[in-house]
Amino acid sequence: MALLYKADPVRGEQWKTLFAEHAPDIEWRAWPDIGDPTDIKYLAAWQAPEDLQTLLPNLQVLFALSAGVDQLDLSRIPPSLPVVRLLDPGITQGMCEYASFAVLGLHRDMLRYRQQQIARCWQAHLLQPAHKRRVGVMGLGTQAQQILATLQPLGFALKGWARSAHRIAGVECFAGREQLPAFLSQCDIVMCVLPLTEQTRGILDRELFRQLPRGAALINMGRGGHLVEEDLLEALDNGQLSGAVLDVVQKEPASADHPFWDHPQILLTPHIAAMTQPESAFGVLLENIRCFERGEPMTGQIDRNKGY
Amino acid sequence: MALLYKADPVRGEQWKTLFAEHAPDIEWRAWPDIGDPTDIKYLAAWQAPEDLQTLLPNLQVLFALSAGVDQLDLSRIPPSLPVVRLLDPGITQGMCEYASFAVLGLHRDMLRYRQQQIARCWQAHLLQPAHKRRVGVMGLGTQAQQILATLQPLGFALKGWARSAHRIAGVECFAGREQLPAFLSQCDIVMCVLPLTEQTRGILDRELFRQLPRGAALINMGRGGHLVEEDLLEALDNGQLSGAVLDVVQKEPASADHPFWDHPQILLTPHIAAMTQPESAFGVLLENIRCFERGEPMTGQIDRNKGY
Repeated sequence: MALLYKADPVRGEQWKTLFAEHAPDIEWRAWPDIGDPTDIKYLAAWQAPEDLQTLLPNLQVLFALSAGVDQLDLSRIPPSLPVVRLLDPGITQGMCEYASFAVLGLHRDMLRYRQQQIARCWQAHLLQPAHKRRVGVMGLGTQAQQILATLQPLGFALKGWARSAHRIAGVECFAGREQLPAFLSQCDIVMCVLPLTEQTRGILDRELFRQLPRGAALINMGRGGHLVEEDLLEALDNGQLSGAVLDVVQKEPASADHPFWDHPQILLTPHIAAMTQPESAFGVLLENIRCFERGEPMTGQIDRNKGY
Repeated sequence: MALLYKADPVRGEQWKTLFAEHAPDIEWRAWPDIGDPTDIKYLAAWQAPEDLQTLLPNLQVLFALSAGVDQLDLSRIPPSLPVVRLLDPGITQGMCEYASFAVLGLHRDMLRYRQQQIARCWQAHLLQPAHKRRVGVMGLGTQAQQILATLQPLGFALKGWARSAHRIAGVECFAGREQLPAFLSQCDIVMCVLPLTEQTRGILDRELFRQLPRGAALINMGRGGHLVEEDLLEALDNGQLSGAVLDVVQKEPASADHPFWDHPQILLTPHIAAMTQPESAFGVLLENIRCFERGEPMTGQIDRNKGY
């Protein structure tokens, strides 16, 4: 019985050490040296091999090494195979840090001051108190709720929107497409941490931007596929949006001629908001394997109908 | 009996409205229209007039409209005149926002990613967990303690240093010059929020930087006078420091040829970490006037021996 690892080889060495120390009963194999494929019971991967079913006939669980599974083509994965995403507390911590940095930066006009530094201009601008700054989060899953809890002590007026209804202390929550306009009209800063599905692809578009207060700002910590990139450029150019902090783009890595790189109102980072850290993720993955062995439910198992 | 206001005229109008509404017994006068100078009992000012004693013979309290009073030449102010600094909760909130932004930005390598955006380079770097990032605050007054409380839920390993001994839950505290080296040796990020006095002028110098771990980063939210600017440039150039976030410079506004403007490892903002907001500061000032009238101690009165 073996686990096959198929992801970044550097972090693979850390995973291997952790398995050897804490779960010696699970044999470790690293792609592409799979050995006898009939031994492989678990696959821990960023992307699955194309011919999954024929290649690994005895596979019982696919563990995605990421919080989202949009990089997997679920239509090519047998419906009976459980797919489990990784709810690494290290990822959540990274998301909270990035979200706080991005919200505070937009709240305190840091894109403007970045331009002033380039222009060697020493000029202060009036400051808006945090309680008058409305921050809205799209998506209200585990990560989003932690992000909201991190923003709360800073005093922002918090809003949240998701497909289904939520109740979160101190956060005004909205649900479903019909309440999206009311939510958007109250967001000075709107942050996307939605999963990428066929329902959310391209949700950050001209139509959505038009429903925000004029001069609002965008943070995209979801996936590049959430954002219609030309619509963002248009909204920044016509003043509907004042700035954007983006950690993802449609096609990664962003090409050298991507228009986001040198846009004065965009802060662009190379998908670094959060990274799976074997140190914090190992316990979660191992606990899921043990649950599966005991026939208990696993944390983060994908609902194949919802796609997340 | 009148109060003379001598500071920014735009915010002066806000102050005037608040006094008219909430303290109609205190006549409002705005510099330079002082009227009969013998009426003036209180002066609320950013900087005092030079000939204070002769100009305002009946002055009873000088209210500085700032958290620090280093801009006042205390040697020219009669020792018997109480000088009171402004402990505006709006200032503290601003300091906490800026401090969190700066710490998160340095923690998450944002100066490096700013350079990568300019270079159109999409490259992620390993991420350090917050609990392994040691953040030290120099100064442990009201503002510093609020800053530490804001940083605490983010999970950083917090240190504090001040002239006198302090006990703060969750913060390892150091006191006095003799414990400064031990404090510095444990700061990956060091933040200055000290008052500017003859004891602290130039404290951020080559000697101090040498005692930090190699590659540490600096945040200066105190005064420009705390920092020996050429020593910072040297420490960045030789790699002893990796970056700096600075809200103040020796001579403000910074001149167009100041070397900080285009330094890739410096984020420079034009003294905007916090601004006195009449909305939040008015209650504090009025309460101090009422205390003085009742013969009770005022909050923020300067100890003329310590200078803060």
